[in-house]
Amino acid sequence: MASRLTPEREGELYAATLDLLREVGYEALTMDAVAARTRSSKATLYRQWGSKPELVARALRYNKPVRIEDVDTGSLRGDFRSMVAREDDCEMERNSALMRGLMHAVHENPDLFQALRELLIEPEVTGLNQMLQRAVERGEVSAGNPALAFVPHMLVGAFVARQLLEEQPADQAFLSRYLDSVVLPALGAQPSDNP
Amino acid sequence: MASRLTPEREGELYAATLDLLREVGYEALTMDAVAARTRSSKATLYRQWGSKPELVARALRYNKPVRIEDVDTGSLRGDFRSMVAREDDCEMERNSALMRGLMHAVHENPDLFQALRELLIEPEVTGLNQMLQRAVERGEVSAGNPALAFVPHMLVGAFVARQLLEEQPADQAFLSRYLDSVVLPALGAQPSDNP
Repeated sequence: MASRLTPEREGELYAATLDLLREVGYEALTMDAVAARTRSSKATLYRQWGSKPELVARALRYNKPVRIEDVDTGSLRGDFRSMVAREDDCEMERNSALMRGLMHAVHENPDLFQALRELLIEPEVTGLNQMLQRAVERGEVSAGNPALAFVPHMLVGAFVARQLLEEQPADQAFLSRYLDSVVLPALGAQPSDNP
Repeated sequence: MASRLTPEREGELYAATLDLLREVGYEALTMDAVAARTRSSKATLYRQWGSKPELVARALRYNKPVRIEDVDTGSLRGDFRSMVAREDDCEMERNSALMRGLMHAVHENPDLFQALRELLIEPEVTGLNQMLQRAVERGEVSAGNPALAFVPHMLVGAFVARQLLEEQPADQAFLSRYLDSVVLPALGAQPSDNP
């Protein structure tokens, strides 16, 4: 799909989509409202994104200020810390409320689930696996470590259980403790030779 | 609250509650329907449980065939395996569909969230912590291991992310791999001296 929007304009449309999502929720969000808010036409929105779930999933992905696949600090611990520091606590709390609402909407909208998986979750998991692969190549993690396959599960647990069990959003201090206490030890991670 | 029901009768009422939950979902479940299905009076239900969220939370807890606090095999790995083996895969899939529906209902019903926390989640977390405490006393896990505080988070991650990322319920084979690959290594668990 050839983009007919400038990157700036694309960013404006994504920001407006997330604002509306926060204001009215997924069910009540309409392409009409996004078009009105951004003074664009519905035809443009559909030409660019095809559907509401795709627009929402791409807006969420765009909203990540740093892409996980661009993180490469030279050590696994550094990469994890950069990943966690992508959003400050305030941003993280805003986004975690948004994600809870969307997880709810997913229950009623399989097409939203599909879009979130393809456009948001799978790229993040792929980026995470590249990060882990580099740690293996540097000798920080043994290639056969069975925990390598479960890093996304460990991380999802941190976010979901923090909210479910402690009724708090996972903030940076919590995630840093979790990475050092759970994820790195499960991976048997050794400090990198190239600091 | 003095129980006026025999344990058998209590079990029948819990089973009928879960059947109705599976059939109609939390929102549509009424105390009237539970009373009609079990040929009891609504007054009895309210006297015994006080409210719909409490009845539902207690029914879910009763439904666990083995209580986590009764599991004590003499080793942490054995305890975890017994915990996972409490439900067979078929039961686990049935219950995981039920729990997904309830997590959805929680969004709209804070009183349900409160009841699930107090009557289901907190007793499970307490039982899990007792299990971990025994492992510390046996010398299997070091008392200062920081992963001890995060075992519920690791386990929640296994259930939620298996569904979210792989669209499969967490079955016994998956959970056993996860325990051996993630949870026990993060805890630095050593085999017990008393096998």
